[in-house]
Amino acid sequence: MVSDRSLKICQIGELSLLKRLQAFCPADLIGDDGAILSPQPGYDLVVTTDMLVDRVHFSDQTTAPEDVGWRGAAANLSDLAAMGATPLGLTVALGLPGDLAVGWLERLYQGLTACLHQFNTVLVGGDVCRSPVITLGITAIGQVRPEQAIRRSTAQPGDAIVVTGVHGASRAGLELLQQPIWGKALSVGDRKALIKAHQRPSPRLDVIQTLRQQSPDLRVSGMDSSDGLADAVLQICRASQVGARLDWATIPLPEGFQNSAVLSPQQALDWSLYGGEDFELVLCLNPDAAKQLVPDLGSKAAIVGEIVAGSEVTLKVDHQVICLNSDQTFQHF
Amino acid sequence: MVSDRSLKICQIGELSLLKRLQAFCPADLIGDDGAILSPQPGYDLVVTTDMLVDRVHFSDQTTAPEDVGWRGAAANLSDLAAMGATPLGLTVALGLPGDLAVGWLERLYQGLTACLHQFNTVLVGGDVCRSPVITLGITAIGQVRPEQAIRRSTAQPGDAIVVTGVHGASRAGLELLQQPIWGKALSVGDRKALIKAHQRPSPRLDVIQTLRQQSPDLRVSGMDSSDGLADAVLQICRASQVGARLDWATIPLPEGFQNSAVLSPQQALDWSLYGGEDFELVLCLNPDAAKQLVPDLGSKAAIVGEIVAGSEVTLKVDHQVICLNSDQTFQHF
Repeated sequence: MVSDRSLKICQIGELSLLKRLQAFCPADLIGDDGAILSPQPGYDLVVTTDMLVDRVHFSDQTTAPEDVGWRGAAANLSDLAAMGATPLGLTVALGLPGDLAVGWLERLYQGLTACLHQFNTVLVGGDVCRSPVITLGITAIGQVRPEQAIRRSTAQPGDAIVVTGVHGASRAGLELLQQPIWGKALSVGDRKALIKAHQRPSPRLDVIQTLRQQSPDLRVSGMDSSDGLADAVLQICRASQVGARLDWATIPLPEGFQNSAVLSPQQALDWSLYGGEDFELVLCLNPDAAKQLVPDLGSKAAIVGEIVAGSEVTLKVDHQVICLNSDQTFQHF
Repeated sequence: MVSDRSLKICQIGELSLLKRLQAFCPADLIGDDGAILSPQPGYDLVVTTDMLVDRVHFSDQTTAPEDVGWRGAAANLSDLAAMGATPLGLTVALGLPGDLAVGWLERLYQGLTACLHQFNTVLVGGDVCRSPVITLGITAIGQVRPEQAIRRSTAQPGDAIVVTGVHGASRAGLELLQQPIWGKALSVGDRKALIKAHQRPSPRLDVIQTLRQQSPDLRVSGMDSSDGLADAVLQICRASQVGARLDWATIPLPEGFQNSAVLSPQQALDWSLYGGEDFELVLCLNPDAAKQLVPDLGSKAAIVGEIVAGSEVTLKVDHQVICLNSDQTFQHF
């Protein structure tokens, strides 16, 4: 079977291609115009969608096809976690150039379904069509009890702001892939961890489980940090019409970020606040509940500030207080 | 506001773009990482996804942006109808070149939401990103009672095969748009109807309502005819491991198709069987129930054949019987 992985899509035709891709779906979910899913009674649905485009969201230089698939699945599962939901399934629509190797696509599906498998969910359908550029449209469906949904708009002054892990690791991993000479002062283990953070991020569905075991009915506001930690705090504050005070000293950093031979304090701050794609959660909740939750989320979770009245989002760095605004956050256009 | 429709996406930035697009969504569904929907208790979900690519699925020559939006929505709603489901909502992920006019995109959303509005559903979310080619990833979510789901795999010998309307109209409409000189022997009204069939197809959600009012518990097999009538019958037969006998004389044709000054009998047959994109339903059900259903589906619905044992799909044309096979159906690669 190895030799036929170099076959091009246009050489095997659409029906053969679909047959190969359907092998990655549970057999009872394929073969119709749509997939049928059964949410549990009493649950609402959560739907989230993303588009990934070759040379915009990934490139052969930094991302193997398995990692493109993993990251695509992980980003959408992270959006479900951000809403407090657990996944029911995921669909993939593909736009593909005819000269793409079948093997490339199968490797993408291997990475994608490996991620789904790790988080106890499945691929439930898709579509393929011709396109001049490799494009993935991914939609994830999840379920949540209505009273347990996490929204951006419900943070209140006095809430503690919790981050579920380090920020900046994915950005540093990308740097290592693009410029391997960077970070030579890091240990092999630290380098590997940063690259893994970029290539194989983990959506924090585990956080939702822990949170809801401890506090089934607690009001929790939040979102994921896919566009960066600063963006997440700014978005929550804008949606909730509140401000926030963050303390740089409390924000968990990846191993090596404190080493000034590796990166300057300014760069550590930039990557942690604005790097993006770490897929952690930023949650705002009652401070006592936050103190109870954080130790159960692993050693890298922390309370990093509090929600305040007003609209200002500030960050205390040593003896300075700086104002965060959305000018520095990532925009696609 | 007219002058700013010629603004390019890259001139207004992602946040302004999102704000303009969010105006097309119900306000309570936007602003989070995902949209929350509430299916009725006792219903299963149906999920279907499609990708549309500029110059593959549409072109400025034949399709105004409003029509691209309408057709994208209609195709996905048709997939829900094909499963026997009613819609809960639709998401759109967009890949867009930075130099695309904002006005073009707003017109696309106007067409898309006009279609959703007509069929009592809403846009529930989306994503925008940069892409060298305009790309839409559309996902529709619907609900169906588990016992009322329509599948391809449950047709049985003896079932009547029902089509819910004419086939070939969309293909003829495309011809009129690409070569206006064609069809000059048609009346103005017929020309308009064919062009409308191509630009503004109607997903047959009404059929599902009528069917389930008449026969709540009836086993119905089927799919939509988006890839052509022949393809639909062949797919149902393959999935159900049965054959079919169709009779050309009973297949409803668009007005003008019988006029040999407009198109030859061979071309009428080709377009009706293989043209695609008519978005009617092809349903297999008990013949008595079929006879009761057809008059309530409008004057263009008909019983066009029956499911038989075996695997052969045949079409009687005058005194000849021809075998249909999948070689002639549309493949993307």
